[in-house]
Amino acid sequence: MANQVNKNDAITSREVDFAQWYTDVCRKAELMDYTNVKGFIDYLPYGYAIWEEIENFCNRKFKAKGAQNVYLPMVIPQSLFAREKEHVEGFAPECLVATIGGGEQLTDPLIIRPTSEILFSELFKKQVKSYRDLPKMYNQWCSVVRWEKTTRPFLRGSEFLWQEGHCLFENEAEARKNAMEFLDIYDSIGTELLAIPFVKGQKTEHEKFAGAVATYSIEALMPDGKALQSGTSHYLGTGFAKAADITYLGRDQKLATPHQTSWGVSTRLLGAVIMVHGDDNGLVLPPAVAPIQVVIVPIRGDKVPAVMEKCVKIKAELEKLGIRVKLDDSDKTPGWKFAEWEMKGVPLRIEVGPRDLEQGNLAIAKRYNGEKDIVPVDAIEQIPEILKEIQKGMYLKAKEFLDAHITTANSWEELKAILDKGGYARVLWHDDTELEMKVKEYTNGGTARCMPFNEKLYGDTCPLDGKPADHVVYFAKAY
Amino acid sequence: MANQVNKNDAITSREVDFAQWYTDVCRKAELMDYTNVKGFIDYLPYGYAIWEEIENFCNRKFKAKGAQNVYLPMVIPQSLFAREKEHVEGFAPECLVATIGGGEQLTDPLIIRPTSEILFSELFKKQVKSYRDLPKMYNQWCSVVRWEKTTRPFLRGSEFLWQEGHCLFENEAEARKNAMEFLDIYDSIGTELLAIPFVKGQKTEHEKFAGAVATYSIEALMPDGKALQSGTSHYLGTGFAKAADITYLGRDQKLATPHQTSWGVSTRLLGAVIMVHGDDNGLVLPPAVAPIQVVIVPIRGDKVPAVMEKCVKIKAELEKLGIRVKLDDSDKTPGWKFAEWEMKGVPLRIEVGPRDLEQGNLAIAKRYNGEKDIVPVDAIEQIPEILKEIQKGMYLKAKEFLDAHITTANSWEELKAILDKGGYARVLWHDDTELEMKVKEYTNGGTARCMPFNEKLYGDTCPLDGKPADHVVYFAKAY
Repeated sequence: MANQVNKNDAITSREVDFAQWYTDVCRKAELMDYTNVKGFIDYLPYGYAIWEEIENFCNRKFKAKGAQNVYLPMVIPQSLFAREKEHVEGFAPECLVATIGGGEQLTDPLIIRPTSEILFSELFKKQVKSYRDLPKMYNQWCSVVRWEKTTRPFLRGSEFLWQEGHCLFENEAEARKNAMEFLDIYDSIGTELLAIPFVKGQKTEHEKFAGAVATYSIEALMPDGKALQSGTSHYLGTGFAKAADITYLGRDQKLATPHQTSWGVSTRLLGAVIMVHGDDNGLVLPPAVAPIQVVIVPIRGDKVPAVMEKCVKIKAELEKLGIRVKLDDSDKTPGWKFAEWEMKGVPLRIEVGPRDLEQGNLAIAKRYNGEKDIVPVDAIEQIPEILKEIQKGMYLKAKEFLDAHITTANSWEELKAILDKGGYARVLWHDDTELEMKVKEYTNGGTARCMPFNEKLYGDTCPLDGKPADHVVYFAKAY
Repeated sequence: MANQVNKNDAITSREVDFAQWYTDVCRKAELMDYTNVKGFIDYLPYGYAIWEEIENFCNRKFKAKGAQNVYLPMVIPQSLFAREKEHVEGFAPECLVATIGGGEQLTDPLIIRPTSEILFSELFKKQVKSYRDLPKMYNQWCSVVRWEKTTRPFLRGSEFLWQEGHCLFENEAEARKNAMEFLDIYDSIGTELLAIPFVKGQKTEHEKFAGAVATYSIEALMPDGKALQSGTSHYLGTGFAKAADITYLGRDQKLATPHQTSWGVSTRLLGAVIMVHGDDNGLVLPPAVAPIQVVIVPIRGDKVPAVMEKCVKIKAELEKLGIRVKLDDSDKTPGWKFAEWEMKGVPLRIEVGPRDLEQGNLAIAKRYNGEKDIVPVDAIEQIPEILKEIQKGMYLKAKEFLDAHITTANSWEELKAILDKGGYARVLWHDDTELEMKVKEYTNGGTARCMPFNEKLYGDTCPLDGKPADHVVYFAKAY
């Protein structure tokens, strides 16, 4: 019986080629597959199930804040799209455009939505007449299309799944509060679901969303030292509302323009989970988001009826405890099963074998740290607690990595050295697009990820040009 | 206090103009709104919430049968689309085609998916090598685009929301069984969720899906006597698999072609609910699918604190019972609130007023039959039971209407008379496309809805051409 499998054969090692390791995991863990059209992928059941967990988590939190789900058209008339100047400049080069409908040339071509600010503005225009109609807090789950030259599964695609929230408020304070509250919800996706510590902050002028007043983001740090923007929340001011000519009669009986926000997370979060936690044996999923939290593998189950009976019983017990569990009763060898479920990142494996069982024991193996323990059979009731510990352990491991990769840069040379090595360079900063462009060139691609909320000014002067500093910024190379 | 509202003012009466009544309800109940692009609608929160209930219901039943959710691209290369002859002939005239991506002309234009048989075939081709890889049972929730000239909210749109299941099996028997099982699930959407009795049967050769061997459908009957196809399930045979060159190594070690099915329901179901149950005061929702099952309206709540306290308490009690409840504590008059929640079709209204409350009573009003009762306050715990009775009552009412509108036609004249009056004409039949075309012309648009499973042959001869009959078919005018 082939109990030992050379696990590393299946995928490239992270040391050898991190990018190749990533796509290997995406495919071998059956999260996605490529299609005939570049940048458009198939989300396979196992990958889509993770997205469904994220969706359920968000829906609960969004609805508790008063957000309502809607669905708006997947197309935007080109004439309408062209209305908001900055916005169209930001998105036009990436657009997929339909020009033929029902066999005829369209007089006003239709842009497949790259984002829906404009459509929501059109809707708001009809719905909002009085302060009594505010706030509006809408959310949409859909796919969007942005024609990309370089694509990678989940990280950058010509089509990707996301949610986009679009809200309208009476005043700036409420709108800014909303933008921040949903950023906090996004942050909680990391702390509660994906075991990822995000850096939370404001984007620089240069990096903000086309048409926004302010953009906030959560940024995750990948093991290769590159940052991954994982969610954004925008205070849009009144620009889109003015372009759409939305006004409302205020409490003071005067016409006013409402303030808008938008916020979104996408299937990029899957990319973050894969990279942050994965190892050379494949995917490693945090229990909270794992489609299968526990896999039960019978040893000699086909020969020893007591083994299979026990497995079935454990499965039922775990299901009663609300755990997502899979009993692998296929005719593959245990070694093959171990490797397969490790590749798929199942957080906990229970092995039930005749010898252990005779002594009233079974083995439990934790995916994220490789620990394997022999425990008494009645330890099953502790599994929910063990899953919580795994979740916590995975978060702390990722937090440790993040903390070890934030380094203060006091000069151009230090900045470059930190970014070459990988991780965040902490820099005293004043928001200056020209300087940002210089950094990008000098560091071969380093960008301002965000100005973190939890950083305090630790000096007066920007070390890059000697001007007064008013923010701390994190630079990094990024996906 | 304006306790009396002329309710009918808000919308056109069904007697006056059924079509106008329908669109009035769609808009006044805030289910949807029109957009700048014809046939593309906004699904507003209240309408989308109904769709989400349908989605949750289906996901539970689908997953219990082993179906897995996936997401495939929203575009199909034109070259790939052209591969399956009948299919392309069926859909090509309705396609929306993207020809520009990232500012450049596409060499192979992209069709926005009108349905995804071809993409699923491409995926299956990669995934299925052996009988061990079968069955595959995939489902996708998405929107599809079919360029329509005449559009109506939910009933016929250029974009609509749906789910499409695509499955692959070793043999015909399994595939046919799957097609039937999911048709039965669709039927249960009517019996368990929407309180709609469907006619379940097989489509004629002329009416079947482009590229299918057999198409089965559920058909609902609208109050204007027209049928509405509400869900379809197809046994596709091996046509798509052959076109995609999918083969697998069978149990007998020989190469074989798998058998395919597909099945779908769409936001048409919302149209069915609106029409089947609605009345001149607006929408009437069955409790099982209603986003708000109970609305509590305080009478003089602003003046009498005990009233509002009681309302809050009842709301909490109902929520504890798992009921979706809304307390309308806005500053509108009770009469206004009554009319508004009637328009939105909330199944049960609870009125809490100072006078009734003094005597330990409250009023409950059922939306579907207008019954209003004064009941003791502790009747609250019976609300779940009352909601079940309403659900049942609504189904029976619709069933009675359906049964009263199925009439046997023994001649061309009778057939025409039945279809002119509205409802189904039951006809002894042999599947003949030419005869079907004649019926359509003679009856000004009557089509064969389906050959119902529950009908037995009650004679030998088709009354339309005297040829031997082998089926019973229902003709009707249809949406």
